[in-house]
Amino acid sequence: MKKLETVLSPALLSLTDVKNKTVVVIDILRATSSICVAFNTGVAKILPVSTPDEAKLFKDFDFLCAAERNAEKIEGFDLGNSPKEFSNPLLADRNIAFTTTNGTKAIKLSKENGANIIAIGSFLNIETLVKWLQKQNDDVILLCSGWKDKVNVEDTLFAGAVAIELKASFSISCDSTLLAMAAYTSVKDSLQEFILQSSHAKRFEKLGISTDEVSTCLQLNTAPVLPLMQGEYIINCTPQEGM
Amino acid sequence: MKKLETVLSPALLSLTDVKNKTVVVIDILRATSSICVAFNTGVAKILPVSTPDEAKLFKDFDFLCAAERNAEKIEGFDLGNSPKEFSNPLLADRNIAFTTTNGTKAIKLSKENGANIIAIGSFLNIETLVKWLQKQNDDVILLCSGWKDKVNVEDTLFAGAVAIELKASFSISCDSTLLAMAAYTSVKDSLQEFILQSSHAKRFEKLGISTDEVSTCLQLNTAPVLPLMQGEYIINCTPQEGM
Repeated sequence: MKKLETVLSPALLSLTDVKNKTVVVIDILRATSSICVAFNTGVAKILPVSTPDEAKLFKDFDFLCAAERNAEKIEGFDLGNSPKEFSNPLLADRNIAFTTTNGTKAIKLSKENGANIIAIGSFLNIETLVKWLQKQNDDVILLCSGWKDKVNVEDTLFAGAVAIELKASFSISCDSTLLAMAAYTSVKDSLQEFILQSSHAKRFEKLGISTDEVSTCLQLNTAPVLPLMQGEYIINCTPQEGM
Repeated sequence: MKKLETVLSPALLSLTDVKNKTVVVIDILRATSSICVAFNTGVAKILPVSTPDEAKLFKDFDFLCAAERNAEKIEGFDLGNSPKEFSNPLLADRNIAFTTTNGTKAIKLSKENGANIIAIGSFLNIETLVKWLQKQNDDVILLCSGWKDKVNVEDTLFAGAVAIELKASFSISCDSTLLAMAAYTSVKDSLQEFILQSSHAKRFEKLGISTDEVSTCLQLNTAPVLPLMQGEYIINCTPQEGM
């Protein structure tokens, strides 16, 4: 039976063998939510990069540039890291170079560690993601991006939600997965209320970012896409109906 | 208000400022459970050391030597890491040099990182520990020893149980604490059953260690002691009644 594991922080990824596995990168607030919205809007491809300077280089090649650090958009960039910005219809068919505090770092780290496939997960595409994972043959690692290597609430709870959906088709003997499922079970009926207590929601509050930003990222299946890494790019690999 | 934080793995301790704080080291299966039993039996002091060879050095100074690696007692040592061994009345007034895979490592790491006070926590002394923490002025860090730097179920659930008891007297804004409390709330009525699914319980099963070993470590308040580090040693600092 395929195995499912969860890694609660990028700082713990080196303890888990990633080679030949599918890694689902999770950064609910907000990089992986934004990526799902972007592909739902019709963006052509997204290039995750390490630094804002690296992102800027791609302006010359007709990329839009998106950069966030410490929950704020960096001045002079086309986009920050708010899902709402990525729903602008003008983004259709465009390419985006994207760098964020945690999410794009976790994507790049998964690639460096030899993941076979890297998928992007969020509540906005959970059903599409789960159905696809059920059909895959690889073992799966749910990688929570966290906040600067600290474990966070929202990524862990999403991992728990996915694991509950997958438990019939995967073998689960990883303690972090068991904990994430138990925590999600405990708070699923008041998910938004619970996540509003989290350190990242409090960071938003201090920056004057509305709680709508959190609710947007907790909506289920509003961006039913399957973003996967292909070489250096993330592209939209949403299966056609019936496939 | 005093702050309470949880660190789910020693590999994440460097992300949290430990200086001038009280660190509660948690290794439910089994080092911190064994330490509580030892002091309840009347052991004089315990010296946590890094390696079995280092433990052996103290034989010359009339210490008993206890060593465990990968859940097994090391041959030639007086004791391993089973709480039952530490309840032998012959241990009263003896000194013990102790090294384990995870617990004694976490104790030493807390000291190296500048903790003000290091306390030993387990279900066996939870009430004594909680009452003492409520009266202390320091901020508190609950440090889960985990398994070779991986997050584990039993230490995280104990952190959640302690945090629930302390939430009226501490400010909690740490995501790991919120998750640990949610997970504990979800499984507290079937704690042993849940922990028997954990990776460490399965490790015990493979080694032929009885499930009694897990139940012993989940009993509440059977060793109502307060072990604290004083210099290089752990000693019994149980407050007298009424203090």
